Amino acid sequence: MRANYKMQRLFVPNDLGPDIEFEASPQQSHYLMHVLRLGEGAEILLFNGRDGEWSAAMAAKSKKAVRLKILAPQRPQPPLPDLVYCFAPLKQGRLDYLVQKAVEMGAGILQPVITQHTQVARPGIDRLRANVVEAAEQCGILAVPELREAEKFERLLSNWDRERRLIFCDEDASTNNPLPALQGLRESKLGLLVGPEGGFSDDERKMLRALPFVTAIPLGPRVLRADTAAVAALAVIQATVGDW
Amino acid sequence: MRANYKMQRLFVPNDLGPDIEFEASPQQSHYLMHVLRLGEGAEILLFNGRDGEWSAAMAAKSKKAVRLKILAPQRPQPPLPDLVYCFAPLKQGRLDYLVQKAVEMGAGILQPVITQHTQVARPGIDRLRANVVEAAEQCGILAVPELREAEKFERLLSNWDRERRLIFCDEDASTNNPLPALQGLRESKLGLLVGPEGGFSDDERKMLRALPFVTAIPLGPRVLRADTAAVAALAVIQATVGDW
Repeated sequence: MRANYKMQRLFVPNDLGPDIEFEASPQQSHYLMHVLRLGEGAEILLFNGRDGEWSAAMAAKSKKAVRLKILAPQRPQPPLPDLVYCFAPLKQGRLDYLVQKAVEMGAGILQPVITQHTQVARPGIDRLRANVVEAAEQCGILAVPELREAEKFERLLSNWDRERRLIFCDEDASTNNPLPALQGLRESKLGLLVGPEGGFSDDERKMLRALPFVTAIPLGPRVLRADTAAVAALAVIQATVGDW
Repeated sequence: MRANYKMQRLFVPNDLGPDIEFEASPQQSHYLMHVLRLGEGAEILLFNGRDGEWSAAMAAKSKKAVRLKILAPQRPQPPLPDLVYCFAPLKQGRLDYLVQKAVEMGAGILQPVITQHTQVARPGIDRLRANVVEAAEQCGILAVPELREAEKFERLLSNWDRERRLIFCDEDASTNNPLPALQGLRESKLGLLVGPEGGFSDDERKMLRALPFVTAIPLGPRVLRADTAAVAALAVIQATVGDW
């Protein structure tokens, strides 16, 4: 069922269900009252990543806070896509973009990975989460991806579930086309690993190539920036073995 | 042949060939001398979108200008990809991104299109061109796409070469997967049309659907932002009927 684009959509931590009423956070209250200029009775859409999408009305407002009253269910909660998206954090602007796009493209879990050439050692987890929520609010996505703490490259691989196929974008692949390798995959549990701007080191690439649960895919004859490669890889994965 | 990433790459308007020597523009001279801090004899890479890639040396520098001496050919000039990328201009930041990504993904011609819901009537052509050059410089792309003046939606369609298949991303397509429609295409001459944030109007969609040279493709179950849809569409097109 398509999302409703006429109404404002907000992510809230609260449980959502019939007759539930609660006070919106100070930030969201301010946003509803002073940015959107909504008054009592105005309807919006709420989701929390657990209970699907519900319509709600501004039941009352004080100077500081808005009370929201749940009205009716709009869309059921879909399952989280079973795609673990592992990415080396980029510099801020491109990182924001990378995370927003991953949410739109149907990543289920966002896993920052620190590789040898990664320039951002500690991505701001709050900013990452804000980007996840923003993308979900704007694109009508109810299955809000889980955001994990950053992990070292070697640790990610040694702890990896061997039943889950890990796809990585390999500039040095012998062909240009990713479809044959992807269409040959049997696993339904998938992971995608996207390197930093500098790409993977030779050691990292060797390590990946040697692992039985890893598949290397090329992304055409041109060298892509990391954030471009991420969206392109998600597109061909979703179109071949994903949920498209 | 892969691009060389160690060396600085610059796009220049000048002809490139053996023993050619010329003065870099004031901006590029400043960049070479004061940003990169390169001295006489330092080597860089030059391309102009016509003569392939050449190594060059800083032959001499005055306070204001750098003289560049062509040394040797590095990579031959590849043909321009035969893919016309038609896009509704977005607001500035996303437009920059959209254009950069299109260059990376192998668009041959960039054609801004003004649709009913397009919010940006006159995209700054100089800024668009700067984004094209930046992406080409950074990604080692020698086939620099041609940038056309903005055109009205109806005019684009009435002047369209009917031998060229025009693919557009249709949110209302009956399936989620773009591959079957793309793999069925016979044409080698391709075009992609990406709508504005608001999507196409019902009239525009009707018009497109009625045209024999148009193919509608879906891009999965989630609604994608226009700039995300652009990269995703280019990825599946290049992987099925393009140059991947």
